[in-house]
Amino acid sequence: MAGLHEECGVFGIYSKETRDLANLTYYGLFALQHRGQESAGIVVNDEGVFKVRKGMGLVNDVFSPEDLTRVGPGNISVGHVRYATTGADDINNIQPIVANHNKGKIALAHNGNLTNSYELRCELEEKGAIFHTTTDSEVIVYLIVQERLKTGSIEKAVGKAMERIEGAYSLVISSPQKLIAARDPYGFRPLCYGVTEDGMIVFASESCALDAVNARFVRDLLPGEIAIVDAEGIRFDTTHCQTKPRRMCVFEYIYFARPDSTLDGASVSQARQRAGAFLAKEHPVEADIVIGVPDSGLEAALGYSRESGIPYAIGFTKNKYIGRTFIAPSQDLREQGVNIKLNPIRSVVEGKRVVMVDDSIVRGTTCRRIISQLWKAGAKEVHMMVSAPPFTAPCFYGTDVDQSKGLIANQMTIEQIREQIGATSLGYLSYEHVTQLTGEDTGFCTACFGGEYPTKITENVGKLRFEDKIIPKDRSGAGK
Amino acid sequence: MAGLHEECGVFGIYSKETRDLANLTYYGLFALQHRGQESAGIVVNDEGVFKVRKGMGLVNDVFSPEDLTRVGPGNISVGHVRYATTGADDINNIQPIVANHNKGKIALAHNGNLTNSYELRCELEEKGAIFHTTTDSEVIVYLIVQERLKTGSIEKAVGKAMERIEGAYSLVISSPQKLIAARDPYGFRPLCYGVTEDGMIVFASESCALDAVNARFVRDLLPGEIAIVDAEGIRFDTTHCQTKPRRMCVFEYIYFARPDSTLDGASVSQARQRAGAFLAKEHPVEADIVIGVPDSGLEAALGYSRESGIPYAIGFTKNKYIGRTFIAPSQDLREQGVNIKLNPIRSVVEGKRVVMVDDSIVRGTTCRRIISQLWKAGAKEVHMMVSAPPFTAPCFYGTDVDQSKGLIANQMTIEQIREQIGATSLGYLSYEHVTQLTGEDTGFCTACFGGEYPTKITENVGKLRFEDKIIPKDRSGAGK
Amino acid sequence: MAGLHEECGVFGIYSKETRDLANLTYYGLFALQHRGQESAGIVVNDEGVFKVRKGMGLVNDVFSPEDLTRVGPGNISVGHVRYATTGADDINNIQPIVANHNKGKIALAHNGNLTNSYELRCELEEKGAIFHTTTDSEVIVYLIVQERLKTGSIEKAVGKAMERIEGAYSLVISSPQKLIAARDPYGFRPLCYGVTEDGMIVFASESCALDAVNARFVRDLLPGEIAIVDAEGIRFDTTHCQTKPRRMCVFEYIYFARPDSTLDGASVSQARQRAGAFLAKEHPVEADIVIGVPDSGLEAALGYSRESGIPYAIGFTKNKYIGRTFIAPSQDLREQGVNIKLNPIRSVVEGKRVVMVDDSIVRGTTCRRIISQLWKAGAKEVHMMVSAPPFTAPCFYGTDVDQSKGLIANQMTIEQIREQIGATSLGYLSYEHVTQLTGEDTGFCTACFGGEYPTKITENVGKLRFEDKIIPKDRSGAGK
Amino acid sequence: MAGLHEECGVFGIYSKETRDLANLTYYGLFALQHRGQESAGIVVNDEGVFKVRKGMGLVNDVFSPEDLTRVGPGNISVGHVRYATTGADDINNIQPIVANHNKGKIALAHNGNLTNSYELRCELEEKGAIFHTTTDSEVIVYLIVQERLKTGSIEKAVGKAMERIEGAYSLVISSPQKLIAARDPYGFRPLCYGVTEDGMIVFASESCALDAVNARFVRDLLPGEIAIVDAEGIRFDTTHCQTKPRRMCVFEYIYFARPDSTLDGASVSQARQRAGAFLAKEHPVEADIVIGVPDSGLEAALGYSRESGIPYAIGFTKNKYIGRTFIAPSQDLREQGVNIKLNPIRSVVEGKRVVMVDDSIVRGTTCRRIISQLWKAGAKEVHMMVSAPPFTAPCFYGTDVDQSKGLIANQMTIEQIREQIGATSLGYLSYEHVTQLTGEDTGFCTACFGGEYPTKITENVGKLRFEDKIIPKDRSGAGK
Repeated sequence: MAGLHEECGVFGIYSKETRDLANLTYYGLFALQHRGQESAGIVVNDEGVFKVRKGMGLVNDVFSPEDLTRVGPGNISVGHVRYATTGADDINNIQPIVANHNKGKIALAHNGNLTNSYELRCELEEKGAIFHTTTDSEVIVYLIVQERLKTGSIEKAVGKAMERIEGAYSLVISSPQKLIAARDPYGFRPLCYGVTEDGMIVFASESCALDAVNARFVRDLLPGEIAIVDAEGIRFDTTHCQTKPRRMCVFEYIYFARPDSTLDGASVSQARQRAGAFLAKEHPVEADIVIGVPDSGLEAALGYSRESGIPYAIGFTKNKYIGRTFIAPSQDLREQGVNIKLNPIRSVVEGKRVVMVDDSIVRGTTCRRIISQLWKAGAKEVHMMVSAPPFTAPCFYGTDVDQSKGLIANQMTIEQIREQIGATSLGYLSYEHVTQLTGEDTGFCTACFGGEYPTKITENVGKLRFEDKIIPKDRSGAGK
Repeated sequence: MAGLHEECGVFGIYSKETRDLANLTYYGLFALQHRGQESAGIVVNDEGVFKVRKGMGLVNDVFSPEDLTRVGPGNISVGHVRYATTGADDINNIQPIVANHNKGKIALAHNGNLTNSYELRCELEEKGAIFHTTTDSEVIVYLIVQERLKTGSIEKAVGKAMERIEGAYSLVISSPQKLIAARDPYGFRPLCYGVTEDGMIVFASESCALDAVNARFVRDLLPGEIAIVDAEGIRFDTTHCQTKPRRMCVFEYIYFARPDSTLDGASVSQARQRAGAFLAKEHPVEADIVIGVPDSGLEAALGYSRESGIPYAIGFTKNKYIGRTFIAPSQDLREQGVNIKLNPIRSVVEGKRVVMVDDSIVRGTTCRRIISQLWKAGAKEVHMMVSAPPFTAPCFYGTDVDQSKGLIANQMTIEQIREQIGATSLGYLSYEHVTQLTGEDTGFCTACFGGEYPTKITENVGKLRFEDKIIPKDRSGAGK
Repeated sequence: MAGLHEECGVFGIYSKETRDLANLTYYGLFALQHRGQESAGIVVNDEGVFKVRKGMGLVNDVFSPEDLTRVGPGNISVGHVRYATTGADDINNIQPIVANHNKGKIALAHNGNLTNSYELRCELEEKGAIFHTTTDSEVIVYLIVQERLKTGSIEKAVGKAMERIEGAYSLVISSPQKLIAARDPYGFRPLCYGVTEDGMIVFASESCALDAVNARFVRDLLPGEIAIVDAEGIRFDTTHCQTKPRRMCVFEYIYFARPDSTLDGASVSQARQRAGAFLAKEHPVEADIVIGVPDSGLEAALGYSRESGIPYAIGFTKNKYIGRTFIAPSQDLREQGVNIKLNPIRSVVEGKRVVMVDDSIVRGTTCRRIISQLWKAGAKEVHMMVSAPPFTAPCFYGTDVDQSKGLIANQMTIEQIREQIGATSLGYLSYEHVTQLTGEDTGFCTACFGGEYPTKITENVGKLRFEDKIIPKDRSGAGK
Repeated sequence: MAGLHEECGVFGIYSKETRDLANLTYYGLFALQHRGQESAGIVVNDEGVFKVRKGMGLVNDVFSPEDLTRVGPGNISVGHVRYATTGADDINNIQPIVANHNKGKIALAHNGNLTNSYELRCELEEKGAIFHTTTDSEVIVYLIVQERLKTGSIEKAVGKAMERIEGAYSLVISSPQKLIAARDPYGFRPLCYGVTEDGMIVFASESCALDAVNARFVRDLLPGEIAIVDAEGIRFDTTHCQTKPRRMCVFEYIYFARPDSTLDGASVSQARQRAGAFLAKEHPVEADIVIGVPDSGLEAALGYSRESGIPYAIGFTKNKYIGRTFIAPSQDLREQGVNIKLNPIRSVVEGKRVVMVDDSIVRGTTCRRIISQLWKAGAKEVHMMVSAPPFTAPCFYGTDVDQSKGLIANQMTIEQIREQIGATSLGYLSYEHVTQLTGEDTGFCTACFGGEYPTKITENVGKLRFEDKIIPKDRSGAGK
């Protein structure tokens, strides 16, 4: 709602022997759950038979023990968790997408967002193609299948498809006999791989998912790299590497990824602590305690505390029981002060000058509510520190904010925002420092902070472009 | 299990004004429920927006009041109930099939089975098409979409597609602005239309669905006829009529259709009574009462009674509460005599010579159990009369029996069957009379009784041809 | 809604060895499903451990295979199906009622309705009892438990309790070691027993449930009789027999019971045929066909046909797929003629003078709708025959109609009713004949036809007496 | 499983005007969810009509918006969340317990556990009472109802009942016109009250639930105090105060309660920080970082860090998506290192001497797994600090551990435990300091650490005493 959302997580395993891959994929996806909570899917390839289980909801909810048993054994698996970016929350859009074809089938999981998919889709439809989803991922599937008919090789087909598509994509693909992973030439989204003790090769959006299945992290895929795994082991196609500048999403470090993950060689936890330390340098204040907004503001708060010398404290209790079926308080009850998710700890903040660190202010409403609770709990001052620059421009590379309307930083000055949220002072991380969170600036996408868009942006890149244009207002649903 | 199954029912409405068509389609499908109990779907076209609700199960179970409200208003609707014929019970296979395309979309409901769909699908895949279902109906959708790209007209596209496809099909199709119905040139499956008092045009597999929505029956579509309804009213394209001999499925009268329906001008109830009367002439016996096996044997029993003069009686009580979740007795309990569905009425049959009429003997096990109950209830003789000829050959035109193995009449003589089922005597309706159930023989498909197959039959026409060949053993599922 | 409802069915088994009684009880209850569709319960007594499964809904819906396995084995079982008579549809009210007590426990299933339960409950509460249900059955449980504390014997306790309670009751009760069945001294409700081939003793409301589990019918319990089964076999206590006149509910024959059941020695099917024959004598008409309203009017129609010589016909097709979740048409759609449950067969009734037989007219609305459909289908005359006398007085012995308001026969003359329902003529079975449906009049309760109430009726006997008085408007619910 | 469980949370509201109390109670219970996750219930008293909604599961899952609307308005409400202590997880046992009685009804919510309920129940049953649950709370209900019959006053009845029952109880009770709260004379369990801006009086187990509904905390109830709220306001009965020594459960501070709650005047957050500080004094080590095991170890870790001067760090990422339907890894997968809930952050712990603080070691298995992950992530030393003394004796006052078997501290020396869990060193908080967590020792129950049991303990106090003794092995269930 009032937050940013990462879009998706991808996962894949290759095993030389037939094993119960559904279970391992389940735990891998569970570790990537923070990257997408709307739907999940697992495809296990058992000697060319693709066994599928997909559904709306959390990994917990989608897969029953019976499902895992049924999908169970195989030697290749592909998994996906999704927060809808393109394509409405239609169950047809749940990934991995499986395409059956008499020349072979593929299952594909995609993290990211293409910026030329509308044009590609129209072109394919003009030639007689029929699309069943409203996702840009199906465009990739179509291109791969058609290139494969031409080239007769799945690997070449993936490479050829990469020449046509533009934007952000980290892909994990199963053909009947191979597991293929690919990352776009800008490297917008992370993708790494590891090896288990018994030799299985595992791809995942974040290294925390390798930890989950006890796979040793080997390395991140390079931007533009294709990895192919089959009975002969893993090999790499670097044809598309270094064709574009590196443009890793900096928000992966600030907010999306888990603090225990390492992305492109840098620890997320450390990047966040560094963000806090930069903030302390840029916005020093006199205060009694530093607290973080759980969960993603905690590391930055610790960084601020260490740099500034102001003691770190635990300022909030978070109610961890909010589930899908939670009944949000009505506007009326909110105004009466009904207070459900975060409660400040009065004994900690009462009478104190408080520095509070969070990772972003999107619309400002949540921030305002939290700060007002601190005042009510007796805080003497509330200095709000944001561990990222103001978020001013839409993202077209796979996050949930692809329109600039509704972004508070796009409409107000920092002073106006401060007033709006009711803080004593307000500091944002500088644009200069945000590119140094992992050390030297190695190339980041900072489009959402007003930086340059790495790819061409047309008018057809919005999240619901296919819904808006091709099938306006359509809502499909099968199954209850 | 031990019975024959009709495959599908189709339904469609065109209204000049926007109305709540989801409700009417619900009641129409409910009246066609006997034609398919595995899944159901409704698509309402609301000014070009196709609102869809599909699901596994009975009409009752698939649609909630909220679903009907959501799908609700529009001016065209298409509905389908399905007993899987081709395509395993995958939810992707639920109809109507909706294809989105930037040159327009279509929703299609199909009753019947093509006999050349395997070849057509391979041909389309070779050109780069990707199929998402394992139904032959999607082949029709693809052909229509591609012909439309060429001709620019949905009506012409349907006609062109009919030139490519072979086999049994009654179709109801919505384009953004038109409702189109079409029946294959042999007329294997029924399709009729009617008009409501306020001018809506309704298509349905059987006239009982017109009764359900209080539409006045106008006429059956001719074999090969295409009906097009749009803002200017209804018009007909008879280009493909009379290109093939009429081959209406005779089992529609004997078993599939509801007795209150009229198909191609003939009452189903009367056809069944006539079957009973023919049986009485062909197989006269001395007996005290004539009873029918509920529900489809009752009319034939009455016909036998009237022709023979032997009194009609109600011999069984049927438990009407068996639902989807009923727990069938174990083999063990069955052998202990646990008896759940039909119970003979002892006071009716005790000490009597009984003529029992049913519509078919497929594997013989059910029939044997019922007869043994009659003996236990004190019957003195049990004369079994079947209101159809022996079922000896597979059907490839849309019923559930597409293999000849398992058919008792294919493996035993009539005397052996009689012995197997434990009857005093056994009579089948003659092949000669079965073609006269509606009066003069106007042309029926009698392939399942050993008659000729009207179309070419290759090795690729079996029910699960796409599962067996293209995606062996694959079982997909989304949603719980 | 517009119909009468039987209230409950009871079932019990005693086996010397431990067996899977849950399954057998399931099939027994399934055969009694017509006696109660709102809830069902099974208690299996496994060496003094009472394993319980209860729930709202049909037998189909309440019990899963896992439930039956869990409840599974034991040597005594008690089952119940319920259509709420006293006690709102609260899940606490689902039977069998189980009472835990350190001096032993009991499980009790009750069919019928007490007429002095309000007074007894108040008396018990004054002494400190707390009731958990709003059923009169819990009053019986309390009396038995308290008498048992005094007498130390469950058998004596049942007899003592019978001296306190008044009204209609057929009971099946399990104590830790015994299965006890009892029928009230008037014999309002049926109760019979049988024996299986391997020696289990089975009690059931109707003999059709004995057939279901392949138990041989032995005899009906006498009014007032108590049967006790334990390791030593079955024995009977007839102390309370013949203390009251026999008052079997005549509506059990006309409507409630299944036609394949035998109650107090008389076949239900034959009683209904006899009702039809009496009607033909009382109300002869000139007509072309006699049709019955499915399902309970069919036998009476056949009886009318045989007596009158007018041919019997099958006049309606009934849609058998209506389930719990069926969405009834709105008033609006009903007025547009949407027609869901019964459809007349035009080819049968068109141009005919029709005699239509049904078992009752409660409010008249359903009857009126059916007759209007016959007119629409082309009937020339519609002679309505009702196989019971006019229903004019409330029933307090366990059916659903305990108020006289809403009963059409209580408000209009027969001629007015005829006009209201739109029939050519209308005949009711005479009060004289209704007591002869099973042969000679052996004593029936005919209170609902204006006969005498066998027991004292106070103002506190209505269906919701405990809801209305003690816990007005309260609606409880646990579990979703 | 391997953890301790608090048993229950209670909540109640009195409003002079009729208001939507179901919603407020929902949010109050949501704030108390950590005190019981197995079932939840709300009873709203609307002018004497008690509207009930109860169910198994989290507050989220039990109450739908429709439930809240149905139960909705009233002027008194009582709510309960429960982790089964006595009484198996039977839905009949879900609280609040509602008793209907013609002399008035009550709804009761109970947190705690009686130590003489077995004896009281037997006594009541001997006099003819029938119990419907296996909870000791129903014993309280029975006593209150019976005392009320004698005294005619609900307030006096509560007081009289308190003279009979022994053990731990914090009660919230609604009679038709009053809301009553009571706390046992030892004060084992917390109970406080507050007032909302518009004058509603709110009782809750913890002050965080007052915060949730924006009620101002007024004070804790005294041990033994009864508070009565009706139209005339709130009044107190202190007859039973100071009849026993104060014995507040010290584990409420260490583990059960939320850090943002204040219990008997002391902040839980501060008590935990103080525990950490005591640990640092008792068990000083040389180390590089101090980390806490989320969530309840975090405050103690911070206290240790501040006292010792060793930097605080965030050492783990916790996966917050584990829900009820999560499929736990098989033993096999656990041994392969599948790792789901807590993942150490390698960049934080690698190469470091780590102090890790947690609140308890129950069986040792979880602790061992976490420590082994730290080793794997590169920790150089792992010093385990437990913010409580060894847990050696069962608790009979309302927690989940009422048997001493399975408690690691009961079977091993500290050195053996250290070895078992694989830590470099292991320190427990001393018994001396644990009573000083809130400042001076004001009287705590420390029975579980080997202290004295404040009440008499017989052999009949175990958690499942009624299941074990009265209804062995019985498992009931209604509703799916």
